[in-house]
Amino acid sequence: MDFAHSPRAQEYIERVAAFVDTEVLPREREYLDALRGQADRWAVPPLMEELKAKARERGLWNLFLPDERYGAGLGVAEYAPLAELMGRSLIAPEVFNCNAPDTGNAEVLLHHGSAEQRERWLEPLLEGRVRSAFCMTEPDVASSDATNMAATAVLDGEEVVLNGRKWWSTGIGHPNCRFVIFMGLTDPDADRLRRHSMVLVPVDTPGVRIERMLPVLGYHDEPYGHGEVSFTDVRLPRDAIIAGPGRGFEIAQGRLGPGRIHHCMRLIGMAERALELACRRATERTAFGKPLANLGGNRERIARARIAIDQARLHVLHTAWLLDTAGALGAVGALSQVKAAVPAMVQEVVDMAVQMHGGAGLSDDTPLAGFLSTARALRLADGPDEVHLGVVAKLELAAYRERA
Amino acid sequence: MDFAHSPRAQEYIERVAAFVDTEVLPREREYLDALRGQADRWAVPPLMEELKAKARERGLWNLFLPDERYGAGLGVAEYAPLAELMGRSLIAPEVFNCNAPDTGNAEVLLHHGSAEQRERWLEPLLEGRVRSAFCMTEPDVASSDATNMAATAVLDGEEVVLNGRKWWSTGIGHPNCRFVIFMGLTDPDADRLRRHSMVLVPVDTPGVRIERMLPVLGYHDEPYGHGEVSFTDVRLPRDAIIAGPGRGFEIAQGRLGPGRIHHCMRLIGMAERALELACRRATERTAFGKPLANLGGNRERIARARIAIDQARLHVLHTAWLLDTAGALGAVGALSQVKAAVPAMVQEVVDMAVQMHGGAGLSDDTPLAGFLSTARALRLADGPDEVHLGVVAKLELAAYRERA
Amino acid sequence: MDFAHSPRAQEYIERVAAFVDTEVLPREREYLDALRGQADRWAVPPLMEELKAKARERGLWNLFLPDERYGAGLGVAEYAPLAELMGRSLIAPEVFNCNAPDTGNAEVLLHHGSAEQRERWLEPLLEGRVRSAFCMTEPDVASSDATNMAATAVLDGEEVVLNGRKWWSTGIGHPNCRFVIFMGLTDPDADRLRRHSMVLVPVDTPGVRIERMLPVLGYHDEPYGHGEVSFTDVRLPRDAIIAGPGRGFEIAQGRLGPGRIHHCMRLIGMAERALELACRRATERTAFGKPLANLGGNRERIARARIAIDQARLHVLHTAWLLDTAGALGAVGALSQVKAAVPAMVQEVVDMAVQMHGGAGLSDDTPLAGFLSTARALRLADGPDEVHLGVVAKLELAAYRERA
Amino acid sequence: MDFAHSPRAQEYIERVAAFVDTEVLPREREYLDALRGQADRWAVPPLMEELKAKARERGLWNLFLPDERYGAGLGVAEYAPLAELMGRSLIAPEVFNCNAPDTGNAEVLLHHGSAEQRERWLEPLLEGRVRSAFCMTEPDVASSDATNMAATAVLDGEEVVLNGRKWWSTGIGHPNCRFVIFMGLTDPDADRLRRHSMVLVPVDTPGVRIERMLPVLGYHDEPYGHGEVSFTDVRLPRDAIIAGPGRGFEIAQGRLGPGRIHHCMRLIGMAERALELACRRATERTAFGKPLANLGGNRERIARARIAIDQARLHVLHTAWLLDTAGALGAVGALSQVKAAVPAMVQEVVDMAVQMHGGAGLSDDTPLAGFLSTARALRLADGPDEVHLGVVAKLELAAYRERA
Repeated sequence: MDFAHSPRAQEYIERVAAFVDTEVLPREREYLDALRGQADRWAVPPLMEELKAKARERGLWNLFLPDERYGAGLGVAEYAPLAELMGRSLIAPEVFNCNAPDTGNAEVLLHHGSAEQRERWLEPLLEGRVRSAFCMTEPDVASSDATNMAATAVLDGEEVVLNGRKWWSTGIGHPNCRFVIFMGLTDPDADRLRRHSMVLVPVDTPGVRIERMLPVLGYHDEPYGHGEVSFTDVRLPRDAIIAGPGRGFEIAQGRLGPGRIHHCMRLIGMAERALELACRRATERTAFGKPLANLGGNRERIARARIAIDQARLHVLHTAWLLDTAGALGAVGALSQVKAAVPAMVQEVVDMAVQMHGGAGLSDDTPLAGFLSTARALRLADGPDEVHLGVVAKLELAAYRERA
Repeated sequence: MDFAHSPRAQEYIERVAAFVDTEVLPREREYLDALRGQADRWAVPPLMEELKAKARERGLWNLFLPDERYGAGLGVAEYAPLAELMGRSLIAPEVFNCNAPDTGNAEVLLHHGSAEQRERWLEPLLEGRVRSAFCMTEPDVASSDATNMAATAVLDGEEVVLNGRKWWSTGIGHPNCRFVIFMGLTDPDADRLRRHSMVLVPVDTPGVRIERMLPVLGYHDEPYGHGEVSFTDVRLPRDAIIAGPGRGFEIAQGRLGPGRIHHCMRLIGMAERALELACRRATERTAFGKPLANLGGNRERIARARIAIDQARLHVLHTAWLLDTAGALGAVGALSQVKAAVPAMVQEVVDMAVQMHGGAGLSDDTPLAGFLSTARALRLADGPDEVHLGVVAKLELAAYRERA
Repeated sequence: MDFAHSPRAQEYIERVAAFVDTEVLPREREYLDALRGQADRWAVPPLMEELKAKARERGLWNLFLPDERYGAGLGVAEYAPLAELMGRSLIAPEVFNCNAPDTGNAEVLLHHGSAEQRERWLEPLLEGRVRSAFCMTEPDVASSDATNMAATAVLDGEEVVLNGRKWWSTGIGHPNCRFVIFMGLTDPDADRLRRHSMVLVPVDTPGVRIERMLPVLGYHDEPYGHGEVSFTDVRLPRDAIIAGPGRGFEIAQGRLGPGRIHHCMRLIGMAERALELACRRATERTAFGKPLANLGGNRERIARARIAIDQARLHVLHTAWLLDTAGALGAVGALSQVKAAVPAMVQEVVDMAVQMHGGAGLSDDTPLAGFLSTARALRLADGPDEVHLGVVAKLELAAYRERA
Repeated sequence: MDFAHSPRAQEYIERVAAFVDTEVLPREREYLDALRGQADRWAVPPLMEELKAKARERGLWNLFLPDERYGAGLGVAEYAPLAELMGRSLIAPEVFNCNAPDTGNAEVLLHHGSAEQRERWLEPLLEGRVRSAFCMTEPDVASSDATNMAATAVLDGEEVVLNGRKWWSTGIGHPNCRFVIFMGLTDPDADRLRRHSMVLVPVDTPGVRIERMLPVLGYHDEPYGHGEVSFTDVRLPRDAIIAGPGRGFEIAQGRLGPGRIHHCMRLIGMAERALELACRRATERTAFGKPLANLGGNRERIARARIAIDQARLHVLHTAWLLDTAGALGAVGALSQVKAAVPAMVQEVVDMAVQMHGGAGLSDDTPLAGFLSTARALRLADGPDEVHLGVVAKLELAAYRERA
């Protein structure tokens, strides 16, 4: 049992930490002011490309990819502290080309894409030249139960025809978004987990239409955004189906595991930053003649946040280690555990930090309100807390005689 | 001990309920679409004036005012269930001319204003022709400790001169906002509670400047909004000081008590509506072959919400009854109790309802996201939870020997 | 809406409060020392009979009984504040002859007993000369679902024959316990709610055997106690069946409603006493140079306890008022609400008071450890929290379309 | 980063697990029946000596001691999973000679005792022939602030004279208890952390008197027990002072760190056992036609317990690793974190398991009620939660500018 990071991970930690501290955090305000000051909120402020170029130049690029040809070749547990550092700022993941959903889409193409798909779509994605979206969740069915999915991807000779309506397609609003990965029902008579296909769809394919952009607790998360997208008789050549028809669930399972833990890692960083801001406020602001830290239960709140964050980080690291050593199947319970526990914990820590800031915490004068929106959304995205708790309970009870 | 409402209150309950159900709720979506579809989000959609006219015509107008000359002459406990009904929709309070901060400002002018102030400002306010704001909180000091207040209202001969910066001036963005009530330091050498004055300031007075509008967790709450407002050498005749110099805290105390309980009443209605939406969703939406109501802990969450709301309502009603029978002084502890407890409870209930709705709960497709923003803000507005808990503890411990 | 107690209730409140303060609390320690110092812990210390005589003499006797012939003729809402006062000491309810399960048994006999049963058993019970037990819960089936009940009360000519095993028969250990009310299955083919009978069983009937006394979190609650009792071919004349065969559930429903609310009322008093002790400790004990009240989150804990108690009291009073005005049926949801909420709240408040006392709170130097055991047990007795939450949810959802 | 146990630890884990499963758990009931069936509850049932002999024979003895001469030579992180396994039964720690407070006293004597003290007291202690107690906490001062300590250990020529009153002296009731370690004030004028001494006191020294045994939430924890002990002019030779006068705090700090983490390790095992019992009950018991696991929020409660336990275990292991690699000083924050978090978590998990068991959970038919008492007590023993939260907050805030 050794809780020390590997020397390679340690070295990356220092470099990413330094980059976040010196390049990203000091310019976060500038970026947001630029974004909000633009006539078009759905354009990318030039500062982002500047930061991306700098990160790439320093070799801090695509760190999420365990594949050494395309990425840094880091294990999940090695990437975890780096993703945590990126999570400290809502703008940092893109700077390092490590933002969802592009990371998950890259993994899908890397593992399941054809050579042509990798060349045409994966490479520009990993270069940060294009962005992408993932179209899975649907407005009319409970997405917590993915077998409900109603959109279709039907074979018609050498073509596949897509129909249906998706929402919460994150990233679809980005001006560089060039393709989406769409999931739909191909063969309703196949085995429950072999019915669906994933299809790579260029966004300019006829029949693809962004119906509207959805706010998350008041935020549109520009320039990424979350879209409701309709697919009407969208026709693509059959080889747009990633890995072939009926492999949708198999690919999704492989995609969602890392996706979920990446979210949790970043959330830890978000909570750390929130706690830092809370501590700074608690020591700098006075009321009733004392710093806030010395009023009421504030110290206990800070201590409880520290404990909750440290426990959650260990939990995420342990899950990452399981992914590295036992694979996605060996980590399935741990993944559901962290996905059920971490966003809810971070929501609470951020909420505490908001409270410590008074009105400033509600506004956009700190990153806290954005963090609250993000943490809250992640209690639903990639499976609501309750579904993950159900998985954990099912695994726990499996060892006992169960009558139902 | 009799928990039944008076016949008069009961009759108003039925009328307000019917109005909300038949006039307001069915047109809430239309109002919001109009608001968001306008080129200028800070304009009032005509539907609002239509609804106001209808409510006024039916005698459902200014119900908050206990004064029979200007309002309905209802006691606080009689008004409570009406305010609850209005709280079911974020747009309803204005429809009945019962929205903050105009209600509080009306009470200030009614009780403390000169005849001229009442005629010039109170009457159009009560007719719903003009709107107003309240400028108390400041960005640079902890507003939880009001004695920190740094803005000044200095006498200069027959004039009073205002300087300082306020924020969270709710309502300042409304196109009909004509005046603000400003609070500032007049005499630093007076007794701690006699130092400040309240001044009635027409918004077009030279030196008054809206610096920016502040979002609350992503929402700007148009067309009301929350402003940061600077006052630079704003000169007004001395009789703009309400009730004379040094009476600011006295007036504020009288204003804040009813203001706080009105917020709590409306919050109860918000929680009821959230619970209704959650129950509807829990019975209509299915996953894993069952309605959500029959999955995981959802029924327990619904039951706990019901219990929490019922307890909170009784708490608010009891506090209202204390205000009616024992006055603001006799209700000071109860007021802090409900202010500390109700917004936090409602935040939890709404958060549960959001979760039950999945992604739809995060978006603006239901009123829940707006409710979450509002409930969260009310854990800070009019005193953060922690300050009210401090008041409750102080009163509780007063009977015991305390060394500190 | 009027939260004031009736003059009659107010007068009783003052008298009971004075009696508890001057007669009971000052002698609580003496009673407990006597009880624990006895060779036989299952004997009644003489002090109890002395206090009972005094209470009876002052007319503070059987206050729980709404029937004017036998009791004080108080409504449920009038009795509530009196039961709360009695709840301040674990020994007080018996002093006023208002302790469970004798109160519930008295109501059963009053409403459903024959003239002979009333004379022979009810009168000595109401005089405090005998005690009784209630034998409903069984060890081998989930008592949360009463239709599981396996014990039998089978008719055999002019006799009824009882067989089965009961546990948590509270009061069975008392030296004066003379009879139990037993519930068993009579006709398995009858309608689900008409299958069971209640039978009055003298404890010395052959075949009745106390197998053992059960501790509750380490406490045996002497001299009352909680027994596991076997019934083996216990034969009684048929008229021992209260109100006739098959009426068991009907009687139980009438018995359990008041029983549950009486528990909740007393729990409020227990929480008040715990909070008093916590406040006293918080002001008298110092650490790190300050009274505990000024350390960490202690003030917030005190404030939250005050709020929770006040909300719960109002909730209980409202439920009592519903019982008075709408009857048991009209109060069924409210009863489940308070039963699900109040014991859990009191457990938390007492736990907080224990923590404030350090080691002393764990020991029997304060009444807190006993309170903790009692409050914890009441989250299970008379229906576990979860069953009551289920009732509340079912009622809440009934208005909506439900598919399951 | 490697979460795998060392091969040596893994081998011990398997052996201890097998011993607990095959020797201890199957005989737990037999032990408790023997203990409670004895005329004298303060005698050791012979089964205990039988189990101790077996454990010692198998080399599963004194595993807590990192010192290879006396113990197994395991690091703290290696011992952690073993202590967890022992924590599954309240009787197991003694079986392995790894029970508090003997473990802590052994460490004190090993590190600070004279050769003579080690020979005369440490060796029989490590052989399990004698037991001991630790006399630190006092009834009249807040023990959370150890500098309050009022008992004295005054030098008088070649003797040291002890006076004062201690309580919560765990183990003092054991028939084999031969000595206590007493802490008292020696030099009030010395530096705050150099004023106190620790003295080894044979229990038969004149002037030592057990005043009474204290219950913990109704449990006396026989045959160990918790005593209130008076010391009246207890005279001992000066060399009874461990490590010499004034070293009390230094020794205490070294003693308490491992003591606290051992408690936390065992608590994790207690929680695991409680969760197992809850799962077994949830699958075997039915109500309303379903296993409890499928009712209400029970699955979510099980899932949350699993998550809480796994997070806490990782937290404890990380703290153990810090103790091994960074020493007591490097682990001070982590130690306070786990001590503040783990007992409270375990109290909740056990409380959930009690609830799942209904009345059986309250009684002694399962180990749960005893677990609840133990977990609750450990929120106070070795420093109340609040003091540890204060330490965590202080360390957290140290990096920020603090005005108070």
